[in-house]
Amino acid sequence: MVIVLKENPNPEQVKNLERWLAGMNITTRIIEGMSSTVMGLIGDTSRVEIELIRSLDVVESVQRIQEPYKRANRKFHKSDSVISVGDVKIGGGHFALIAGPCSVESREQIIGIAKDVAASGAQILRGGAFKPRTSPYAFQGLRGKGIELLVEAKKETGLKIITEIMEISQLPLFEEVDIIQVGARNMQNFELLKELGKCQKPILLKRGLSNTIQELLMSAEYIMSEGNENVILCERGIRTFETATRNTLDLSCVPVLNSQTHLPVIVDPSHGVGIADYVRPMSLAAVAAGADGLIIEVHNDPENALCDGLQSIKPDIFAELSAKINELILILRK
Amino acid sequence: MVIVLKENPNPEQVKNLERWLAGMNITTRIIEGMSSTVMGLIGDTSRVEIELIRSLDVVESVQRIQEPYKRANRKFHKSDSVISVGDVKIGGGHFALIAGPCSVESREQIIGIAKDVAASGAQILRGGAFKPRTSPYAFQGLRGKGIELLVEAKKETGLKIITEIMEISQLPLFEEVDIIQVGARNMQNFELLKELGKCQKPILLKRGLSNTIQELLMSAEYIMSEGNENVILCERGIRTFETATRNTLDLSCVPVLNSQTHLPVIVDPSHGVGIADYVRPMSLAAVAAGADGLIIEVHNDPENALCDGLQSIKPDIFAELSAKINELILILRK
Amino acid sequence: MVIVLKENPNPEQVKNLERWLAGMNITTRIIEGMSSTVMGLIGDTSRVEIELIRSLDVVESVQRIQEPYKRANRKFHKSDSVISVGDVKIGGGHFALIAGPCSVESREQIIGIAKDVAASGAQILRGGAFKPRTSPYAFQGLRGKGIELLVEAKKETGLKIITEIMEISQLPLFEEVDIIQVGARNMQNFELLKELGKCQKPILLKRGLSNTIQELLMSAEYIMSEGNENVILCERGIRTFETATRNTLDLSCVPVLNSQTHLPVIVDPSHGVGIADYVRPMSLAAVAAGADGLIIEVHNDPENALCDGLQSIKPDIFAELSAKINELILILRK
Amino acid sequence: MVIVLKENPNPEQVKNLERWLAGMNITTRIIEGMSSTVMGLIGDTSRVEIELIRSLDVVESVQRIQEPYKRANRKFHKSDSVISVGDVKIGGGHFALIAGPCSVESREQIIGIAKDVAASGAQILRGGAFKPRTSPYAFQGLRGKGIELLVEAKKETGLKIITEIMEISQLPLFEEVDIIQVGARNMQNFELLKELGKCQKPILLKRGLSNTIQELLMSAEYIMSEGNENVILCERGIRTFETATRNTLDLSCVPVLNSQTHLPVIVDPSHGVGIADYVRPMSLAAVAAGADGLIIEVHNDPENALCDGLQSIKPDIFAELSAKINELILILRK
Repeated sequence: MVIVLKENPNPEQVKNLERWLAGMNITTRIIEGMSSTVMGLIGDTSRVEIELIRSLDVVESVQRIQEPYKRANRKFHKSDSVISVGDVKIGGGHFALIAGPCSVESREQIIGIAKDVAASGAQILRGGAFKPRTSPYAFQGLRGKGIELLVEAKKETGLKIITEIMEISQLPLFEEVDIIQVGARNMQNFELLKELGKCQKPILLKRGLSNTIQELLMSAEYIMSEGNENVILCERGIRTFETATRNTLDLSCVPVLNSQTHLPVIVDPSHGVGIADYVRPMSLAAVAAGADGLIIEVHNDPENALCDGLQSIKPDIFAELSAKINELILILRK
Repeated sequence: MVIVLKENPNPEQVKNLERWLAGMNITTRIIEGMSSTVMGLIGDTSRVEIELIRSLDVVESVQRIQEPYKRANRKFHKSDSVISVGDVKIGGGHFALIAGPCSVESREQIIGIAKDVAASGAQILRGGAFKPRTSPYAFQGLRGKGIELLVEAKKETGLKIITEIMEISQLPLFEEVDIIQVGARNMQNFELLKELGKCQKPILLKRGLSNTIQELLMSAEYIMSEGNENVILCERGIRTFETATRNTLDLSCVPVLNSQTHLPVIVDPSHGVGIADYVRPMSLAAVAAGADGLIIEVHNDPENALCDGLQSIKPDIFAELSAKINELILILRK
Repeated sequence: MVIVLKENPNPEQVKNLERWLAGMNITTRIIEGMSSTVMGLIGDTSRVEIELIRSLDVVESVQRIQEPYKRANRKFHKSDSVISVGDVKIGGGHFALIAGPCSVESREQIIGIAKDVAASGAQILRGGAFKPRTSPYAFQGLRGKGIELLVEAKKETGLKIITEIMEISQLPLFEEVDIIQVGARNMQNFELLKELGKCQKPILLKRGLSNTIQELLMSAEYIMSEGNENVILCERGIRTFETATRNTLDLSCVPVLNSQTHLPVIVDPSHGVGIADYVRPMSLAAVAAGADGLIIEVHNDPENALCDGLQSIKPDIFAELSAKINELILILRK
Repeated sequence: MVIVLKENPNPEQVKNLERWLAGMNITTRIIEGMSSTVMGLIGDTSRVEIELIRSLDVVESVQRIQEPYKRANRKFHKSDSVISVGDVKIGGGHFALIAGPCSVESREQIIGIAKDVAASGAQILRGGAFKPRTSPYAFQGLRGKGIELLVEAKKETGLKIITEIMEISQLPLFEEVDIIQVGARNMQNFELLKELGKCQKPILLKRGLSNTIQELLMSAEYIMSEGNENVILCERGIRTFETATRNTLDLSCVPVLNSQTHLPVIVDPSHGVGIADYVRPMSLAAVAAGADGLIIEVHNDPENALCDGLQSIKPDIFAELSAKINELILILRK
């Protein structure tokens, strides 16, 4: 940590600061510049509260040198983490294809889609049971019943299943769920993260709409610091001024995360762009950027559905995309 | 709701759409433009899922005309809501001054500050018991003990008290808390909002870092739709590219909210700018913009605290600011 | 400047870096931390290219300690700059009220409005002659003719005039213009800034839609480094994810600028919010935040204009607002 | 265009509006909703000023249905535009690889790099002569001399050359330049765009840091409306809250642009991420997203340069990347 002191700092205040740091086993070295003074901190600063330092009268600014996350940090864990979901592996060269509908709607729907995506190469089935919706008047998901249907689809197809948790008290319902998803809106629901850190199930942690990559890693750290190291990170678009897409899919975060953490990184192009026509190119782009997996919304197209033709990835497009992804991976890994 | 159809829409698909809307008691009218066709919807569209419409093959874009919130909407509730917190009133011309430390740290600290801010004109005491912290290694608050100390301070000074809830299971601890705060990170924790909608305590709902004004109103609607209409909105800064301040305090949201909702709006300049020197001007600016109250972090300055002089608003500056705010209100209301 | 070196830096590369810095009269001091090495630079680093340093193999990150602007920096010029526009002064306690229409449309229009705003207390008349428009098919302004009409209005009313330049070659037309405005889209048109630095007219420099406060100061520095120190800064809203207002007026930038620079700061609430109803509260908020002036769009309301009632500040509302601003300034300066 | 009228609109004002629109050959149709009235406009609305409509007393909001750009619009020009730069083609299946240093520094440097990148498959050489720099104290480029050196490199290698213009008066120096680049900061320098519309050289138009995709197309329209249809669009990162990368490369804009315009789209990963290690994955991602070309910064590595080892793409990495891109294109086009 580097502390920049204000011009002509009060020597008494500087001494107080050094004494306080010494109490945390941190030594300091001062560099007098032309118009400012810099104090370098030597020791383990991960427990030093940067906001507290910043609030001191003598301090102009503070910069952390060490990353504030440890367990998620590649510096202390050089090789890629491989997360095992039964016999499916994610990370370290293992690519995971997750697919399924936005919401679980019915037994027929979820099993139908599950069979389709399994046939096309998906290893894991997604489907929302608890749905975070902006409006209280919108469909909130089948909740417990939705999880039961996912479990049925799992038994029928052998696919692993992933679904989103919204609240600690829902945890008992996730017994047979293979990966628990923490949605973007809950990325900083720290009480939930701590609770999930106490189980050993893989957690898919989605990046919040306006959260930095470092904050994503700090939220992973919350889970890991409680003992659960099975964390999969997921980029799903950030909020920017651009309105042509629902969110702005930040694919640069894939190589950034690959350099900063050993955890696997997957991409959700469906939520990232919000428009089905763009899911295919952005899926391929995510693979080329180095993602360890994709989570894609796939709808079935039953005869009696509202209007023939939802503008979403349909099973046939998903099948073609899945094959293309495999070709791409071969080229990239060569 | 206005639906723009794609060029040369499939008449069969258009009919399907109209039939489906008719089933929801919505009639349609078509306008054929030069190069596009617009379908206007007549009826109560608040339950129509805009995402679903947008996903249809024939649809190019959709625009909601009616606001999707009802109970929070000024159109259906013309006069200002006044929220009563015991004998303290907020909104409709009643200005509320809320002050106190970031975190409750000790009995002495909280009672000392409570007396100071009460003497300067604050009616409500703030203080964090459960602290949402980006890092799992940072101080997480005194939790239950912190609430007990706030209650003591309330008894000692007669101030009302407000503190933040982070999780539904904490609710029983809030018995004697006068206003329950929902922090920015929980603005879209819908399960929590629904639960808070079942009690009758005033809820201070903070705007999320990257949430739009409309999303803030939708979250208020979650609470109100369960029966609790005592919602106070709070602007506390949004996340932008600017790094000179911790967040960008969006004061324009005060007049925007004043025109769109009857709920009171207060401003948190301390979190909004993150730098004590800017709290005073931004407090005055918030008052001038039409806020119904302020929530300000005030620290005490005990002799033995770490380094003499935290760069935060101290009781004497708060006292001067409080007096100036009163003068300002007189001028503005004239 | 503080340079953080990579883990186990190559000693040869470190020596090369130190030798190169020494050639610029900069000495270095090394602090060895637990898991990283910090190099502090002592000397005038304003000419050191931070991007170049950052691109070096041994460097992990670089932080500038000294601000990269000098002439605009309050550290080297403690007292407020007062910009004189004839007998009108801006800054250092002198508040400037600038008002007028978006575009100059006709002789009658501009002189009518000029008389109105002069009667209400404005000292300076604004009006666009060259209009930067997103669409090539939109009205591009009266251009040279517009400036002539502004000059007529100036002669008629005694108001000073301000209008926007878009291109170096237009400069000769600005002979009788009192303040030259650089619009948000040209804030980083460095060739234009350098040219304006060679004249002595006051320059109103608007902040770009996505420019940081520091970049605004660097653009002021461009003008000042060529010899023209008469720069007035102007906040007019930044681009964020919020769409309820045209832009997000960043009023926090007023106290930030007041602490970092001696140059006067004015606010443009009209472009900042884009909706007339919100101009009044945001004008008052800007004054309370400490602005040295306001630039407000005021329309006249001739009988035969398109539809009776443009949703814009009309002269009577401006008159009331101007009086309220004066009351506010009295309270704030007490 | 669809106009939403305020509740209980004044019939006189509505009639005025309709009369005014009729004068522009636009007919209207009214749809009365439950709590609002919608007016649909039929006719060519590209010249209707949306801001003017929005400012009317009776109007609540306005939505454009037709895109405001015509010449750039794929609706009116279904097939891909192919831009010819001598015998090099860009767009419509022709992939262009542009490479070279950030700035032209010397004869040796530019010719050395030119030979390297030509050998690796680049068809076009980039290199800055006029450099837009945030600080007036930073190197501003070799200017006219830089262009001369680029022309020499062109003669030596047969590569086409591209370099950035900053000001209309520099245009005569661009005689032998093959593609004129308009930088991000000048994307809305409308006077410059209009001037470039009068020549027939290909223009590479970079997206501004905070400009929407639609604004980029409107700026292309400025050039095209003056007669020059040889416009190449370039994504180079937008400004967001994330600081881990210099900008946020918005790759979704590639498929969005591909659907909205017939113009070719290239990507600049070097400026997009600002960190050399991430250029390779983001280049591959851009290709997979459907880009028609890449513009990449490549540095040479002469023995005596400052510190051996700039952290930038070096010729050998570029060579490997170029080969990989070719493999990728083969797979994607299959």
